Amino acid sequence: MSARTKVKRAPARGVYDREAIDAILDEALIAHLGFVDGGQPYVIPTLQVRIGDMVYIHGSAASRAIRGLTSGIPACLTVTLLDGLVLARSAFHHSINYRSVVVLGSCRPVEGPAQREAALHAFTERMVPGRWDEVRPPSAKELKGTRVLSMRLDECSAKVRTGPPVDDDEDYALPVWAGVVPLATIAGEPLADPKLADGIEPSPAVTGWSPTPG
Amino acid sequence: MSARTKVKRAPARGVYDREAIDAILDEALIAHLGFVDGGQPYVIPTLQVRIGDMVYIHGSAASRAIRGLTSGIPACLTVTLLDGLVLARSAFHHSINYRSVVVLGSCRPVEGPAQREAALHAFTERMVPGRWDEVRPPSAKELKGTRVLSMRLDECSAKVRTGPPVDDDEDYALPVWAGVVPLATIAGEPLADPKLADGIEPSPAVTGWSPTPG
Repeated sequence: MSARTKVKRAPARGVYDREAIDAILDEALIAHLGFVDGGQPYVIPTLQVRIGDMVYIHGSAASRAIRGLTSGIPACLTVTLLDGLVLARSAFHHSINYRSVVVLGSCRPVEGPAQREAALHAFTERMVPGRWDEVRPPSAKELKGTRVLSMRLDECSAKVRTGPPVDDDEDYALPVWAGVVPLATIAGEPLADPKLADGIEPSPAVTGWSPTPG
Repeated sequence: MSARTKVKRAPARGVYDREAIDAILDEALIAHLGFVDGGQPYVIPTLQVRIGDMVYIHGSAASRAIRGLTSGIPACLTVTLLDGLVLARSAFHHSINYRSVVVLGSCRPVEGPAQREAALHAFTERMVPGRWDEVRPPSAKELKGTRVLSMRLDECSAKVRTGPPVDDDEDYALPVWAGVVPLATIAGEPLADPKLADGIEPSPAVTGWSPTPG
């Protein structure tokens, strides 16, 4: 935590311990990455994966955003998990249950094909644990065309809202249903590539996919 | 579309017609809003709702982010819908099916209690269509303590990936299952507030909630 990542609004929702922050990062498939170009902020969605004290993102070496970030400009990586609709007895106290993490810092390029391959391994395994061993590994040319960037988890914080709505005292007497509608991400039936050869079935890693890893 | 919102990487994924952009915005409950403070970008999750050519967000009048944005600094509002895991025959061609919208511009405060009430109406109805008529409407004091900001959909674009993986020609012969694992958001059974009085049941608006409005 720093002065910049201290949760100022609703400070009771601020969470600073790394275990809680890591758990949120590990459950989120994508992050929204912010950077500045010519005074204009840009926010782009990107796959992310955490290994230890680092969060990794990747993209094409030809991407303008990736090129800018590679130079080490200030960045902000935010992930958000939506957990539920919080339905209060008053319109004003409606809210969302969520878990979010904000990481401030800058990106550094991951150099070396072995290091980049390790990151691609982590991305693939994050998407579908066990998938790496099923597929063709990256070629030297593919590793060369990929930019992998890392951000250190030095300056980060989480913000979490859980539980039922909080209504004004006098509103609890209203004859209005109040509570939480939980939200979750689910995987549907795998859809085979129309070009898939006959007789190839998805592995248990694919059919058993769950949004919560581990 | 502008030079700044033109999709440069994978230009075939760029979508600029307002109908498609509106449909993505209308399906997303939250946006990630980017702004700059002292050279540092910040990205915060926030509820958003579109009405016509405007996207609305809201927050407390005491929030530092809301105060900064109210002054009209450059902003970027991004929404992302995750549609599926794209599992290719090679690690390198793994991807995500998604629909995202980026809006550049700046925020303007929505002035006047009637205008703010109209926006809160839209937020509540966006969360649960029909909810507004079930709950206590905002008081004058609540409307005073709320800041509602709007961003015009002048400079915006969408980026969409759909369909099966795209593999290298020679990889189609590999005996690897390839395809898409669709992802969706679902609502669980509503959880009543522990303080709910006996005999109050959730309305069909709550029990029939769907992530796709309309």
